[in-house]
Amino acid sequence: MANQNLYAGLPSAPETDERFDALLTKPGLRIERIISTGQSSPPGFWCDQQEAEWVILLQGAAGLWFAGEDEVRELNPGDWLYIAPHRRHRVEWTEPQTATVWLALYFNET
Amino acid sequence: MANQNLYAGLPSAPETDERFDALLTKPGLRIERIISTGQSSPPGFWCDQQEAEWVILLQGAAGLWFAGEDEVRELNPGDWLYIAPHRRHRVEWTEPQTATVWLALYFNET
Repeated sequence: MANQNLYAGLPSAPETDERFDALLTKPGLRIERIISTGQSSPPGFWCDQQEAEWVILLQGAAGLWFAGEDEVRELNPGDWLYIAPHRRHRVEWTEPQTATVWLALYFNET
Repeated sequence: MANQNLYAGLPSAPETDERFDALLTKPGLRIERIISTGQSSPPGFWCDQQEAEWVILLQGAAGLWFAGEDEVRELNPGDWLYIAPHRRHRVEWTEPQTATVWLALYFNET
């Protein structure tokens, strides 16, 4: 039986939009693969989520900026973090030439 | 600020026991890093969990056997699967010479 692989079907060239693939969807819980190829948050946009998020970058690299922090955090393969609901953040940059692969878990925090 | 990295502190030589590190613990939800260095399930033992599990192998390799299946599934980096509660399975083998890194998510399935 063939396995499902997180690195299957990655784009070989930059794409216009990020890709979001739901890997598992359960009540109050969602696992997504996100593939970026150079995208970033629009100028002035802050991501402000109702759900909690746990995210790990597994390939590529990205810069993440949290509101109130002085510096953009650089994420490299294996780096993970927990983002509390409504903790505002932006993706400042992702690598333009290679696919950046994120594994993100969204859940309702009680 | 230093990031937390999934590949930090991996053993450089085989260890007696697998390592289990909780990365996030929330009500009804637990994210664990598991590091295997050649361990497998004891003979005749089947893992039968009350919680649902979503697991991805990110480094190394392993053989997973599900009760009722004819063949052991070989997992390689990026391979992921969902294991329903009480779906019996065994780890038949993990690579003896390199650290096998798993990211496992356990949750209550309602």
